Amino acid sequence: MELLKKMILENGHIINENVLKVDSFINHQVSPSLMKEIGSEFYNYFKDNKITKIITIESSGIAPALMTAINFNVPMVILKKQTSSILNENVYQTNVKSFTKNTTYKLTLSKDYISKEDKILIIDDFLASGEAAKGAIKLIENAGAEVSGIGIIIEKSFQSGRKTLEDQGYRLYSLARIKSLQNNAIEFLD
Amino acid sequence: MELLKKMILENGHIINENVLKVDSFINHQVSPSLMKEIGSEFYNYFKDNKITKIITIESSGIAPALMTAINFNVPMVILKKQTSSILNENVYQTNVKSFTKNTTYKLTLSKDYISKEDKILIIDDFLASGEAAKGAIKLIENAGAEVSGIGIIIEKSFQSGRKTLEDQGYRLYSLARIKSLQNNAIEFLD
Repeated sequence: MELLKKMILENGHIINENVLKVDSFINHQVSPSLMKEIGSEFYNYFKDNKITKIITIESSGIAPALMTAINFNVPMVILKKQTSSILNENVYQTNVKSFTKNTTYKLTLSKDYISKEDKILIIDDFLASGEAAKGAIKLIENAGAEVSGIGIIIEKSFQSGRKTLEDQGYRLYSLARIKSLQNNAIEFLD
Repeated sequence: MELLKKMILENGHIINENVLKVDSFINHQVSPSLMKEIGSEFYNYFKDNKITKIITIESSGIAPALMTAINFNVPMVILKKQTSSILNENVYQTNVKSFTKNTTYKLTLSKDYISKEDKILIIDDFLASGEAAKGAIKLIENAGAEVSGIGIIIEKSFQSGRKTLEDQGYRLYSLARIKSLQNNAIEFLD
């Protein structure tokens, strides 16, 4: 996606060879025109997959997921990051480790908002090792629903996330694929 | 806003006389058609205020704030809830106490995404005691920017938030105003 790549090159900050900060247009300040285009792009790619629901992870996935949900005209469900276990029969929960932030959280989904008939498109801002996506997949499949696709804004292609998800047969579409952040330069994969 | 009131009556859950759960269309599952209408409604109300930026608080405010930002065609900035102090000259921070959840967090705004010239519209899902809104206002005014309006989806009018904000001269628009949740019934204020 050309607009996205342009914004990454102009406004992204390389923190180190593993971390790219896009706080000025995705994570802290959010560009509405970029989000509109992202929503259209994910819709065009997955529109034949009979998607019934968009699922994302709080909180940086919410903006792109909402724009995608608007294009599909289906509900969006936000997986919550809880710090403690919810003692409640009515939720699915799984542990997710964030390598970037070195924290663990409990990804939580109410059973009320997913059913066996659902065909889910997962939307998130970053794909690195794929831990968050794997957590989301686990909750969705626990409910007997289908993961019909995974849409990512920025993939760090030098990490293992894509391989892990593709090896398990999931359909993955990343709008920008970063080959390397080494030598203080952003290099895209074509 | 009639669609919102209808959804609150049909799908809201009274947890106790102070807490209304709207997880099925605002907080956990999100209705895209409702969010679109909310964005238009806030735009129509504040469109003459020369708004330069929409500010919200993660994470339930993001969806309505993004739709509002799209209508205004201005950036959205998400105030982050940090659990610890950031030792960084480049952020504004203030403590906010959540009475509903009985927690305290540090609302955080990078100095990069606000300037003295900004005219800000704050968007959030709920107004109760007004603690979150007061925190947001403090950060915005620390930056020398102007709070031009506050847009709320659901106001619990039996709590003190509206009075506090109006006494300080802020322009507040709530899409649904709840007079009472007593006796297991939702009563709106006209």
